[in-house]
Amino acid sequence: MLDEKRLERQLSFLVEIDKMKTVLRRNLIADGSRRENDAEHSWHMAVMALVLYEYAYSPEVDLCRALNMTLLHDLVEVYAGDTFCYDEAGKVDKAERERRAADKLFALPPEEQGSEYRALWEEFDAMQTPDSIYAAAIDRMQPLLLNYLTKGHTWHQANIGSDKVYERMDMIKKGMPKLWPVVEYIVNDSIEKGFLKE
Amino acid sequence: MLDEKRLERQLSFLVEIDKMKTVLRRNLIADGSRRENDAEHSWHMAVMALVLYEYAYSPEVDLCRALNMTLLHDLVEVYAGDTFCYDEAGKVDKAERERRAADKLFALPPEEQGSEYRALWEEFDAMQTPDSIYAAAIDRMQPLLLNYLTKGHTWHQANIGSDKVYERMDMIKKGMPKLWPVVEYIVNDSIEKGFLKE
Repeated sequence: MLDEKRLERQLSFLVEIDKMKTVLRRNLIADGSRRENDAEHSWHMAVMALVLYEYAYSPEVDLCRALNMTLLHDLVEVYAGDTFCYDEAGKVDKAERERRAADKLFALPPEEQGSEYRALWEEFDAMQTPDSIYAAAIDRMQPLLLNYLTKGHTWHQANIGSDKVYERMDMIKKGMPKLWPVVEYIVNDSIEKGFLKE
Repeated sequence: MLDEKRLERQLSFLVEIDKMKTVLRRNLIADGSRRENDAEHSWHMAVMALVLYEYAYSPEVDLCRALNMTLLHDLVEVYAGDTFCYDEAGKVDKAERERRAADKLFALPPEEQGSEYRALWEEFDAMQTPDSIYAAAIDRMQPLLLNYLTKGHTWHQANIGSDKVYERMDMIKKGMPKLWPVVEYIVNDSIEKGFLKE
């Protein structure tokens, strides 16, 4: 027998998160034509996590769990909005805004599913476990590539220098240390080409 | 030692597929404001596959492999474009266009990765294995929900009736048979509300 109440909650959750397609991030898509949204960012991250898995810092990283995190990590932004990673003022109340958003969003699906997704999001956010450290590194690498391809669009907007970018990219050193030279190459080349202040 | 040549191929693949964000589908996003793109569709499908997994027709469905399929199933469209599922003329050369696109796209990453992703796409496309049957059912359910929410936008555009929709949705009967009543409910309610011809 189909549990209609349960299915209804699952479908209402799946419909609600369609709003991810309208949450705009600060960075542009690769062709520079427009801002990227959260759904696109999450998909791109998931494929990246798949393709770059061999660079994960630990064999303990469970790719499937890390994939689930990339898919779900920004869901709270359907209510809390995207907080620009270089916006110090916006960061102040980010945790509180996102906690309230999580209370609302993860109440939509059946309870045990809502708890599971919330736990995955909280684990991602805390960046203390192998899966979340890897997923967080991917979450830095994806916009780094897009910013480089769009001539430092976000960096110019935030008026920041390489020190702030290195600080933000620190999770790559932790989660995919073998790819740290890529970060250094991109930062140095961006400085040389005028995409980023030294 | 970092294999730079290998990494370069991986990154060029990850940059190339950013174009998924510009491949427009026929259906609108849930709020009806604009057409959905392939990246958004793939992300939404992946989360759907996660949330609705309990309705998969067989315990043999490997969720992780099915997730990978949802993420990669439309990649060839960065070169082949989206073929409207109700466009009989477009379907004629679809296989050939997509095969050529696959030759080009899956040559970008390192060989064994390219082969792996191509094999996943071919398996998805053939719809003969448990993982691909489930993923294909999700690929029908996602636009069904969006069409229903946008008052039959795609159905009106294609000028089709419920017989064609039922035909297209047949994979749901196979991959998620428990959810067939949802299809029937949506089709019947759509006819009643004038979203779809009988």
